[in-house]
Amino acid sequence: MKISEFGGEAAIINLIREKFGTAEQGDLTLGIGDDAALIRSGDKFVVVTTDLLIENTHFRMDLIDPYQLGWKSIAVNLSDIAAMGGTPTYSFVSIGLPDMEVEIIESIFDGMRDVSDTFGSSLAGGDTVASEAGIVINVTQLGSVEADRVACRDGAKPGDAILVTNTIGDSRAGLELLLKFGLEQARRASESCVVHHLQPEPRIAEARAAVSTGKVHAMMDLSDGLASDLQKLCCASGVGARVMAGAVPVSKDTHIAAARLDLDAVRLAVEGGEDYELLLTCSTKSAVAVARAISTTGSSARVIGEIVEGDGVVLAMQNGSEESIGGSWEHF
Amino acid sequence: MKISEFGGEAAIINLIREKFGTAEQGDLTLGIGDDAALIRSGDKFVVVTTDLLIENTHFRMDLIDPYQLGWKSIAVNLSDIAAMGGTPTYSFVSIGLPDMEVEIIESIFDGMRDVSDTFGSSLAGGDTVASEAGIVINVTQLGSVEADRVACRDGAKPGDAILVTNTIGDSRAGLELLLKFGLEQARRASESCVVHHLQPEPRIAEARAAVSTGKVHAMMDLSDGLASDLQKLCCASGVGARVMAGAVPVSKDTHIAAARLDLDAVRLAVEGGEDYELLLTCSTKSAVAVARAISTTGSSARVIGEIVEGDGVVLAMQNGSEESIGGSWEHF
Repeated sequence: MKISEFGGEAAIINLIREKFGTAEQGDLTLGIGDDAALIRSGDKFVVVTTDLLIENTHFRMDLIDPYQLGWKSIAVNLSDIAAMGGTPTYSFVSIGLPDMEVEIIESIFDGMRDVSDTFGSSLAGGDTVASEAGIVINVTQLGSVEADRVACRDGAKPGDAILVTNTIGDSRAGLELLLKFGLEQARRASESCVVHHLQPEPRIAEARAAVSTGKVHAMMDLSDGLASDLQKLCCASGVGARVMAGAVPVSKDTHIAAARLDLDAVRLAVEGGEDYELLLTCSTKSAVAVARAISTTGSSARVIGEIVEGDGVVLAMQNGSEESIGGSWEHF
Repeated sequence: MKISEFGGEAAIINLIREKFGTAEQGDLTLGIGDDAALIRSGDKFVVVTTDLLIENTHFRMDLIDPYQLGWKSIAVNLSDIAAMGGTPTYSFVSIGLPDMEVEIIESIFDGMRDVSDTFGSSLAGGDTVASEAGIVINVTQLGSVEADRVACRDGAKPGDAILVTNTIGDSRAGLELLLKFGLEQARRASESCVVHHLQPEPRIAEARAAVSTGKVHAMMDLSDGLASDLQKLCCASGVGARVMAGAVPVSKDTHIAAARLDLDAVRLAVEGGEDYELLLTCSTKSAVAVARAISTTGSSARVIGEIVEGDGVVLAMQNGSEESIGGSWEHF
């Protein structure tokens, strides 16, 4: 049976989990299934996450600058460290390269260096190999988080407020512009949306500010889109969620891009993908304090709905209708 | 300028090192350039290594069983942990998969599980993604080593004895058989050489026994072949080496395979590649104690030459002639 008939990526991950067990033993406090693994080390955890990017599957060299490719390949891992409430420490970069221009490789590593410097991480090792399959980049990112600051996906409680940082949908709008118009024209249409897609900012400081309040119940980063990721958070926590469409933060840029694309801006935001904003829950009475803590970093945070008993994620439209969301991005 | 004109893999690694600095600061005691990175954690080091394998560049599915591919992809990383004197802890597996048979994927993960179980490691996380570029596997392996047991490449001293474990060349002979005859016929010609190539045994226990003597000056694992790897150890230590061709341990299987292939067995052993045996140095007066410690694990260790002042690696033939070796495997 092929992967596509078997149930795709999610089914493969389940198969791996069955084969290896949950593996939570010894110092390994959290294994397969969250944004990152947690390994106990004294009164802290080592946080570990890894991400594989393959040319023409996950990126196209005609739709991204080499510098941005380098930036993004580390940024998405830093975002997973943020999702756990941690600070990044060291990254390990494996790169497979065809016999290509050295200048392009230099730009890729310039992007990696700049995002590392900006967010306090260091390149500590890696593997450089030839590739006959285009450019392949795997980043394994290590981080650190105090035991009393760690945030997981499974802590959401009925009655919790659901918050997201900044705006969502910008990256998806950028992707749609890129696919429709190509790099140069997409940039002219919305530099902001395109940059959100190609050069995301991991929300390290925002996550640290949030967990420092001691009030966060559950947190993750938005990589597959609000609908899909909120569904995952709800599954992990054994709860459901109700999102108010009118409260979802959509930027002016995304509204303009959506108009250009003849798409619905709120739908771009809800289905989204690669936002790399934070999704978190806390008690309603703590929501203001958490949002205020996040605002000290220069980012904003907004309540978009609430955690409810049961399961499933519902989007409450402004016209009073409700819609079940929470499908997943299936890559096979 | 293309990578191949620029100086290949080694030149790219130098470029990365220049861009990021040596990065040895804070807890990072050893960064880019050894078998693995060392991050201080109390009175121990966390050891981190990573390895990227790309289908049709690093392996061919017609020349390896899926089970062995899974085994090998983790085993080569465990070998790097052994090279530092460490014990493995957790592995993180990124895998890119075309829409392929689930049964094959199961076999790959069976191999990963079995090698992990055999050598005391656990799968703690990873990334499963679609791939339009064939199978891509990246393993990041974590390990642990006590500060007073750690072995690096840069400690070899003139006068040191050079030791290798077991026999070398078997894996290269296996590869040559595979390339010439295909999987089934190669197995019939030499199951032992083929298994050495496809399903190597990381020398964890051997390395631990060696470093426990407190007498090892420098150590690494043999992945690119004795000539190339000894050259790297010598460069890192600022020394040269003299290897006695007659002392290089070559198995009966490799002799038989070499005859079949019309190749020189000692040359297969010296140029080798993917042996995953240990190469280490210690004072001549400690050589017996180190070899005896290694023999308690069921493996053997043999003195093959000595570290000398200067640079370069020389092979002393049994007819009295000498030959400069130490070229590197260039993958571009």
